[in-house]
Parts: sequence; structure tokens; C-alpha cells
Amino acid sequence: MSTTAAAPSRPPAAPAVTTAPPGGGPVAILNAPAVVPRAYDPATAPAAGRSRVILENLVPLVDGGRFAARRSVGETVVVEVDAFTDGHDKVAVALRHRPGATGPWQEVDMAPTENDRWAGAFEVHAVGDHEFTVAGWVDRFGTWRYDLNKRVAAGQDVGVDLAIGAAFVEEAAAATEGDISTSLAGFAVHLRNGPRGEAIEVALGAPLEALMRRHAPRHFVTELPESALLWVDREKARFSSWYELFPRSASFEPGKHGTFKDVIRRLDYVAEMGFDVLYLPPIHPIGRAFRKGKNNSPTAEPGDVGSPWAIGGPEGGHDAIHPDLGTIGDFEELVKAAAGKGIEVALDIAFQCSPDHPYVKQHPEWFKHRPDGTIQYAENPPKKYQDIYPFDFECDGYMALWDELVRVVKFWNAKGVRVFRVDNPHTKPFPFWEYLIAKVKAQDPGALFLAEAFTRPKVMYRLGKVGFTQSYTYFAWRNDPVGLKAYLMEVTQSPVADFFRPNVWPNTPDILPEYLQTNNRAAYVVRAVLAATLSANYGLYGPAFELIDSRPVRHGSEEYMDSEKYQLRHWDGDHSHSLAPLLARLNQTRKANPALQHDRSLKFHTADNGGVVVYSKRHGDNAVLVIANTDPYRTNWSTLDLDLSALGVPADEPYQVHDVLTNARYRWQGNRPVVKLDPNESPAHLFVVRRRVRTEHDFEYFA
Amino acid sequence: MSTTAAAPSRPPAAPAVTTAPPGGGPVAILNAPAVVPRAYDPATAPAAGRSRVILENLVPLVDGGRFAARRSVGETVVVEVDAFTDGHDKVAVALRHRPGATGPWQEVDMAPTENDRWAGAFEVHAVGDHEFTVAGWVDRFGTWRYDLNKRVAAGQDVGVDLAIGAAFVEEAAAATEGDISTSLAGFAVHLRNGPRGEAIEVALGAPLEALMRRHAPRHFVTELPESALLWVDREKARFSSWYELFPRSASFEPGKHGTFKDVIRRLDYVAEMGFDVLYLPPIHPIGRAFRKGKNNSPTAEPGDVGSPWAIGGPEGGHDAIHPDLGTIGDFEELVKAAAGKGIEVALDIAFQCSPDHPYVKQHPEWFKHRPDGTIQYAENPPKKYQDIYPFDFECDGYMALWDELVRVVKFWNAKGVRVFRVDNPHTKPFPFWEYLIAKVKAQDPGALFLAEAFTRPKVMYRLGKVGFTQSYTYFAWRNDPVGLKAYLMEVTQSPVADFFRPNVWPNTPDILPEYLQTNNRAAYVVRAVLAATLSANYGLYGPAFELIDSRPVRHGSEEYMDSEKYQLRHWDGDHSHSLAPLLARLNQTRKANPALQHDRSLKFHTADNGGVVVYSKRHGDNAVLVIANTDPYRTNWSTLDLDLSALGVPADEPYQVHDVLTNARYRWQGNRPVVKLDPNESPAHLFVVRRRVRTEHDFEYFA
Repeated sequence: MSTTAAAPSRPPAAPAVTTAPPGGGPVAILNAPAVVPRAYDPATAPAAGRSRVILENLVPLVDGGRFAARRSVGETVVVEVDAFTDGHDKVAVALRHRPGATGPWQEVDMAPTENDRWAGAFEVHAVGDHEFTVAGWVDRFGTWRYDLNKRVAAGQDVGVDLAIGAAFVEEAAAATEGDISTSLAGFAVHLRNGPRGEAIEVALGAPLEALMRRHAPRHFVTELPESALLWVDREKARFSSWYELFPRSASFEPGKHGTFKDVIRRLDYVAEMGFDVLYLPPIHPIGRAFRKGKNNSPTAEPGDVGSPWAIGGPEGGHDAIHPDLGTIGDFEELVKAAAGKGIEVALDIAFQCSPDHPYVKQHPEWFKHRPDGTIQYAENPPKKYQDIYPFDFECDGYMALWDELVRVVKFWNAKGVRVFRVDNPHTKPFPFWEYLIAKVKAQDPGALFLAEAFTRPKVMYRLGKVGFTQSYTYFAWRNDPVGLKAYLMEVTQSPVADFFRPNVWPNTPDILPEYLQTNNRAAYVVRAVLAATLSANYGLYGPAFELIDSRPVRHGSEEYMDSEKYQLRHWDGDHSHSLAPLLARLNQTRKANPALQHDRSLKFHTADNGGVVVYSKRHGDNAVLVIANTDPYRTNWSTLDLDLSALGVPADEPYQVHDVLTNARYRWQGNRPVVKLDPNESPAHLFVVRRRVRTEHDFEYFA
Repeated sequence: MSTTAAAPSRPPAAPAVTTAPPGGGPVAILNAPAVVPRAYDPATAPAAGRSRVILENLVPLVDGGRFAARRSVGETVVVEVDAFTDGHDKVAVALRHRPGATGPWQEVDMAPTENDRWAGAFEVHAVGDHEFTVAGWVDRFGTWRYDLNKRVAAGQDVGVDLAIGAAFVEEAAAATEGDISTSLAGFAVHLRNGPRGEAIEVALGAPLEALMRRHAPRHFVTELPESALLWVDREKARFSSWYELFPRSASFEPGKHGTFKDVIRRLDYVAEMGFDVLYLPPIHPIGRAFRKGKNNSPTAEPGDVGSPWAIGGPEGGHDAIHPDLGTIGDFEELVKAAAGKGIEVALDIAFQCSPDHPYVKQHPEWFKHRPDGTIQYAENPPKKYQDIYPFDFECDGYMALWDELVRVVKFWNAKGVRVFRVDNPHTKPFPFWEYLIAKVKAQDPGALFLAEAFTRPKVMYRLGKVGFTQSYTYFAWRNDPVGLKAYLMEVTQSPVADFFRPNVWPNTPDILPEYLQTNNRAAYVVRAVLAATLSANYGLYGPAFELIDSRPVRHGSEEYMDSEKYQLRHWDGDHSHSLAPLLARLNQTRKANPALQHDRSLKFHTADNGGVVVYSKRHGDNAVLVIANTDPYRTNWSTLDLDLSALGVPADEPYQVHDVLTNARYRWQGNRPVVKLDPNESPAHLFVVRRRVRTEHDFEYFA
């Protein structure tokens, strides 16, 4: 590790110039890890010295509680905490939870797992904020009962012990009312005065134990100083199938600029493939200054349509519609028509401006000005993007800028758009996103945000923490079993999965990965199967994907040749080689199998052949097993090493694997089946796993 | 995982009975993990929205800052934090630290390591509380300089860029005074008006970079809301060699009760072996009621001396001396005589009472009373310990009890005792220890506490967090290379090492492990070498250890036959088979090699033979390599697989390993040497590793 040693004779540190923020209030907590307030001075304030239960290491807890952990409707929230006390006393631990920040708490018993860890769980059903907390105390009655059992087993005289227990029961009777109190009082009499044998039976019996577990007064309870936060999203945050298309290429007439009306006519195509989110690149007016030509040429030819991400022209900015696409009314029509087919329209939020954007004249203070009087264009030195002006988020008027951008998102949300794909969020400040997402969710708690951040992992994770619902991933560059396992396990399990939801894409308009530059159908099939089954959220850029557009602009580039980012394209969806039927089958399978609608159960199994990837997902009784050949050229055989418990299959029973891609059904037994994956026939198996059921006449079937 | 689902129709939770604590104030933070206060509402308070640097995952930070991380004088504290910002801007991160809670902060630059992690370090020299914190900001000048470099390399016109940079330098000139300001102003003129080539040279040159790094004003700095705590112990907390003996067995006359004066006469024996802590079991009056006889017999014979842990009699309690050992004056004499030989006397703090303890009559409210009027004796049902009354730490007068026990420890501390071995701390409340240790350290910051807690790991770790300096470990039961590696790496590395210091003992009066019940000298040699070299803190119970007392009280027990816990023993230290010379050599080696005085550098290497354990430690230029045969019966050969970089040895150079146990020196080259370990000759190598040095005449030596 490279460290810099203290230079003892160094000059005093430079002064920190902190421009006073508008608004005031405690702010440093925004971007820094919290250090727990040390209100408690151990040498002077042992006020709760009898609260002997220790609670440590609560999960889920994101950055010590700075952020809400994320779940979605229908999920079971498992809460864990270390709980223990001094000595041999038994402890009891309760989990409390509630939707919202007010209202009654519900309480759930927690149970020990191993090594002083306790777990409890509850289901969430409402979108929005939830709170949970835990409490622990010494279980006096439980300790007494446990010890009594051992004394009785050792044949000791327990007369005094029964009197001690009677006092606990009497205390509970006094703290309760009605039948419960009467019941407890009756048990106490038994303990105190009953014949010894009967008293012991009562003391160790389940009825008294159940009553005391509920009603024994709790002494010296240890509680968290604050509850932990949970944000619950609607189901689509967890389970969504995205299809991206450029509306301007949607015309049925080659060479003609597509419109929203054309898109409406293509909705059946999208719906038949089973996608439920239709994501459109920016639909706003496009700038003319420094407009890029075809294949990202620095100069546009007459007629070139420019990049939709160079937002803003005389016709308007982020709340306007490109005139060639139609009107705002047409757009609302599209949103409505899509909804009728179970599809949500997702818009692209790209917070940057073309030099022609109205903001440039109306709010020059929102941009950085160079000493020569020009406005600073986007750069990644030495590359220059003169067609794009980034906002200056450090400008003095940043609050007005933030509020305007919030207004833009709320505007589209009010038009029925509830899903937003955010362009390059990692080039705008994290506090801005935290603000914007909170503001939009205050209008629509069901608003969802997909972060298009292809950058360093901690940056991507921070975007999840500040509120992004889903994120693009490195999936496009994970093509071998080792890389797939390492990455997918990182992003589908805690702690990352508590604030980050992967949305995996085999391609995007910016990314035609080398693996897909081969015009090899098997490669596309494998990537589609992996995307649709590894992650409950996935998407692809079409029709480029299903029509196997595999030409890069040049060798070594991941950019498409004749990219739609800079020109119109015309797609012939009726091609016989189209993967649309495969995609339809995949999305159908996703809808039919709850296992594919959640990520946390993802489990990788072992294949003897290192070119074969094997994994499963399971939800309740539903289990899915995927086996894919990551080599798109060569047939691979492999013996597998399955963890049958992850499939819910008894080790000594036969089971059925039903390939939904070929409809073949195999009867397997044991954990070492052999598979053959031929790229030309079936490069992947997508198996639904069924357990054997025996009928009374000893017939069998698989369900 | 076993969880309990929420029962929707369950009755309301039982009422929590919380007796109002004396003192008041916020208390729940005592025993529960903190959840970060959510003072910041993202939807309403973006006041510091321009503080764009994110700081995450600060280490060392124990339980989110609830506890101080622990270091010792002379250690280098490495602080790490994730730091990044949006976009492509460079960030700068500073580490600030200071001893105490007031006074000037020192600042150290942090440097990036990998994956957005930053590290910085400082040394600690003072015992007591320290604070540290980190701050991060966008490095405007650094970003500009980095970009300029790329622009220049691409042959771009950088006229406007130089003007931008000049403004940064002018801002720094305005914020500074004297020569520095003049220097900066001069550079700014160069940038703005100098010939282009010279201006670029100045812009990219080291002198300007160095000045700007120190003096560029910082904008929108992200700081932690609170600093993190560090407790720095004196060196003995990190590096100590303990020897335990029973003073009552110290007489030179068999059958006679030993005295402190006898112990003084044995100090040379201890000092010659090189131990620096002499730990005495309790030295207080011993109770007579229910006194245990020899070999823990439930009934004592006349003349039986009882267990020193049954503390208290008519002669006094925890602040009194057993009359047969001598007087308080004799004790003070012993402490002084030991100090003269570089040995600290450690006392045993066993907070429990015999039925004859003065507290029982003076403070019956500190004990639990049974319904039959008797006081509750110690139990682990069905086992009963009628000779011991535990305190009732839940009693109403618990604060008076706590303060009395604090008084006891301070009393001995005032008599010159600065090291305390605490008996069974895990059976007393954690808040009590946090209070007691804080109070004693307020009197003597150099007071050290060794926790005798052989219990579950999280309980042991919590004791470290609340203030114990060192802890006994599972070392006695880790006898194979796999178990040794797993356990020692857990307790010598962060996060555990931030609050827990292992003190490894091959035996104690309570633990004669099965491995040592064989009367096999090699087993003792191996365990001594491992203890003395795996951990900078170690100890043993003598003379039982060096005289190879290996008889258990019965098969399957770890108790010694004729244990000194219940009777006097007479030891003949002049035995020819004594391991005292080996222990002297080990302690000498520990003193001579700084590598053995620290734990964090511990590194396990691989041996092809699974019965051989190999590890190294390194501090600066000093490296030690230990290779031990864990099979005390059989000669083991093994090829090793050494990580030479951990030894500081260049891969292509010969090096010398000098066995301090046999004085043999071997010249090795490469990472695959072969060793032979014969239990009857040399069951372990303790090598000092020396690198080759070449003289000008091409002679070589190893240093």
C-alpha cells in the first residue's frame, strides 16, 4: 500500500475556502461516513448499566444507516443482528417493523442461527419508506426453565427453584389482564403449591412457555438509538424486461424519419416478444451547432439528424418534443397505447445541453465560462465534444439549476412516465441525484431510475445508495464462467444487493461487445439466455440485437457501424434469422417462473468443463437451472456437479429437468449429470426443475 | 437460516418494564449498534450540494465509531477511506490527527491505492486518546494540470487553458503571504504572459505543483461529521511475556506455605528466562465455608488451603492480603524488587466472593437472595459452586457496587500494579467493564487489562471493544497448521486487531491441553516456540510448563493432577530436563527482533507437508521465519513454498536463515527450500532471515 508519511516540519495546512451554502443546516453528513456520536462517556454515565444485552452488526444497514436499504413489494426482509449477554443467561430478541415513519409497530420474534447471530423476517407489501429496529433483553423465565430442566435431569431438589419460577409467573400475571392473567396466576399457584411432579410438569410444559414468551415483563431492554430505514419499491424495480429502440428509426418506410405513431404501430412487435419496458433515447429537439454526422463524423452533412443526446434547439429543451417525432399529444398517446399492452415507456434523462438549448441564453450562469468568453463544452482531454455543454454544478445558482431539473423529471412523470433511464449520472454530483430522486419520489413513490453509469464500482454503488433503482453493469464484458460468477455473486448478494440492483444488457447503442462482433448466432443466443436468467432485470437494444447487427464501426471499437446514434436506420423485423421468437420464449419463461423474478437465490454450480457455466435460481417450489456453453464455436460436453439442495431436489430421488427452449424433458438422478451443448443446435439449456411426486398406485409424475 | 415469520394476528407485545436508571441521559447507545442520525433529509436540505467528494468506509473505525480503535506507542496507524467524486475531476484527500481531544491537528496527505481507496499514515507516540479524521475535496489545479498534460501531448492549442490555470495560481497567491505568495504570483505571470513553451514548462513543472498542493485554496471540502477515536496504549500492551506462578508454592521448603519474600527470591529465575510480567493468582484471604479440598474435592481436609479464587474471609476481601503470603508491605516490596529486574507484577481481578467475604455482611444487597433466605451461590446447572457468591449486577444498588469494584482496582494500581488479569470477565456485564476500565485509565492511562474469557468469539471481541487490552485465546486448542493459520490470521488482522489483542498461552492452571498430556518434550518445545513467535503477547503457567508437568487429574480432563488451585506444590527448578533455557532463548530472541514485537505482519507460507506450519513476521528490515513440526512423534520433511517478498528477500538473491535455537546458519536461494524437523533433535526452526550484502571486492555477507 502506498502511503504518505507525516512530514513533521510541514507548513500549516492551506485554508479551506467554503462558500457559505444557502439554506444552512447540518450538511457534512451528506457525503461522508458517519462516525457514531459519542454522547455516552463510559467513565461518567453508566445510566443503563443493567441493560446487559449487547446488539451488534445489524443488517441490512447501508453505510451505518446513512441510506435506506432497498427491497421491493412482495419480498421477505430478513433482518440479522448479533445478540448476546454476559454469563449464561438466555436472551430474547425481537424485530419491530412498520411501513412509514408513524403508526403501530409490528413485532416478530427473532431466532438464533449460529455464533450468537439472530434472524427474523417480515414481508413488505407497500411502496415507500419502512422502518425496522431490534430489541434484546435477558429472558429471565427462559433461563430459569432451561436450568430447571438440567436440575430435574440431574435429580436435584428443585423446591426453591419452583418458588423462584412462581415469582416470574406472578409478575407476568400482574402485568396482564383477563383470561391471560387468570391463566398465569393459575400456573403460578401450581408451581408454588402443587405436588412436586405436577409443578415440574407445568414448569417445563409448552403452555406456560408460550404464555410467558408473550407476556413476561421485559427488564432492562436494549434498543437501538434509532430505527433503520428500508425503502420498498414497486415490483418492476426488481423484475423488468427492457427493450430499447430509436423512435426515429421506427418508420415503416426506409429513409423516412420515424414518429411516435410509428412506434405505436410497433408496440405489438415489442409486446409479442414479452418486454414490459420500452425505453426511448432522448425525444427532445436536437442542436444544430457542432452537430455530429454519420458514424460520429465531426461535421454533419445536410440532412444528418444529429445525436439525440445533443439536447435542445430553438424548438425547446428537456421538456419539448422533437418536431419530427410528433407532438406531446402523440407522446401521451404512445404512453397510453403501450400501457394497454402491459408496457411502460421509459424516457432518457440526459442532463446536458446543445449550444442551441434555451437554457444557454436564459441561464448562462448554469454553465462554465472560459476566459475567452466562450462556454465550456464537454471534454475528456484531449477529446472535445463541442456539441455538448455540461452544466456547472458548482455554480452559485446551483439550487435553481437543481430545482429546474427536478421540474423536468416531474413534468414527464406527470405525463405518465414512471421509468427513467439516466444518462451518465456519474458525471453529475451525488447530492444532486439524492435530492432529485427524493423530490420525484415525493410526487410518485413508484418512479424508477436506471443509472447508465459504466464506471468504477464504488461510483456505481454510490449511485445506488443515493436512490437509483437499478444500474447498468459490467455484464456485457463478462463472457466466461469465472467472470460471470464473481461479478453476478457480487451484485446479487448483500451487502451490494441492499442498495444496488443489476440490470444486465448484452448490448446497448454504445456497446457492441467483441463477443457479439462475430455474426455468430450462438453467441447472441447464449448472451440472451444469460441476461434473461442471471438477472431479474435485463434489457437489450433492438432491433440491432434480435436481427444480429454485428458490424463494429472499425476493428477494436465497440461502436456500431452506421450507428442509430447519428443516423436513421431501417430495420426489417420479419427476417427469418431473427431472435424475436427466442426472446419471446425467454420472457414468457421469466413470467411463468418466480425464480427468475428475484436475484438473491442465484447459485452457481460447478461444471468439470471450464467453458460451461451452470447456475440456478429458486423461489419457493419453483427452481430453474441454466447451463450454457460460453464457447459459441465448439460443442462442449461436461459432467456437472450440482448442489441438489439449491434446486430443492432430494439427493436420493430422481428429478425432471424440462428445457423450455427445446421442450425436451430429461429424467436425472444424482448430482453428476452429463450435458452436451452444441452451438449450432442448443448452446444453452434453460431447465425448469421438477421434483418427483408418487401417486397412491405408485405411478409417478414430476411437478 | 431459521426465522420466525410475522404472525399478523398476534396479540400486542408485552410491556417493557424499564426501571428508571439513576443519572439519566441517553443510554441505549451503550449496548446497541448505532444507526446514523438522519438529520439530513435529502428532499429538503441540499445545503452542501457542492461538496462533491464522497468519503466512505473509513478504517480503522470500530462499530461505526462507537469504540476507539486500539494501537500502541511506536505503531504506525494506517488510515484508509474510499474517496471519489463525480465526473473526471481529481480529488485530494487529507488525513488529520492529534493526540487528545484538543490542540492542533496535524495533516498528512493521503494517496490513492486502488479502486478509489486512499491511504495515509501517522505514528503514535503518546499514551491515551487520539483523534483522527479525513477530508476530501476536488483538486482543481491537479485536474487542470492532468488535462493540460494530455492536451499538450495531443498538440492542442492551450492558450485559453493556461489562462484558466493562471487564475487558480492567482487565487492561491492571494490566499498566502510572503515568499510563497510572491512565488505563486510569479508563476501566474508566467502562465498568463510567458512565451508559450516556457508557460507550459512552468505549468507542468514540479515546483508549481508542490506549491499548489500545499497552498491552493480548497473549495467545498467534505469532512466527517465527527472525528474517529483511537486509544494508544503503552508498548507492553502490544509486546509482553507473561509468567504465572502461585506464590503459595514459592517456598524453598517442601510443604511450607510460600510468601512474597519467597517470590522475591525467585525473581532472578523469572528474569533469567526473560519474562517481563509476573502474574499472581489472587493474593487475598480465602474463604472457609464450602472450601474445596485437593483436586477440587467438595470437602476440604484440615490443612487444605482452598482456592485463591474463593476470595474473602474474616481477614478481609479484595483489598486485603492473605496473611500466609505476607503483608501489604511485603507485597509492595515484591512489586519494587520485580521492577528492578524489568518485571511488572500482574494481579488477578476475580470479582466474586466467598461466603465469608466482608461484603456479604456489609452489602447483602449486592447479592441475589433465594426464596429460602439464602444467598444465591454460583451455578452452572446442574453444577453448584457453594464456595462462591457471584455479585448481582442487576441489583438496585448496582452503581455503588460498580464504584466499590473500581475502588479495588484503583487501590492496587496505587500500590504500583499496572497490569491486571481479569478472571471470567464475560460473566459480568459489558457496561460495567467499560465503566471500570475508563475510570482506572483516568487514574493511570498505562493500566492494562488481560481478559480471561474462554468463551464464544463475539463475547470475547466485545470485551476488547469495551476496553480490555489483551485477551486469552483459543491458541491452546489450535495444534495443526490449518487451525493455527485460520485463527491467528483472524485475531492479528483488521478488523479484529483494531479492538482485540491476542495473548497466547500453551497452558494455564485451568488448561493442560491434551496435546501436552503426553510427557513429550517435543510437544512442549513446539508449543513454546509457536506461542513466543505467533503472538507478540504470550505467557505460560510455570513452573508446570517448563518442568513438563503433564499429568491430568483424569483421562478426558484438562485439569492438572494435584492442581495448585487447591493445594501447595513444590517445584524443583533445577531439573535437567527443564525448558527454562529454551524459554530464555525465546524471550531473548523476542527482545532482539522487532518483527516478533508486532502482530500485523504475520504471514503464513505453504509447506508441501500438511503437518508442518510455516510463517513469518517482519518489521522494517527485520524478518523472522518459523517452521515447526506439529507432529511431536515423527520426523517430518517438507519442501516449502515461501513468499519471499514477505521476508524482504529479492527473488533472485541468496539469503541466510539463522536458527537461533541451534545457532545453525543455512544459505538458501529461491522459494522452495527443504527442511527436516526431527522431534528428538529440533522440532522447530526459529530463523532470523538475512539478506545478502556485497562488498566492493565482491565479498559477501548477510545482514
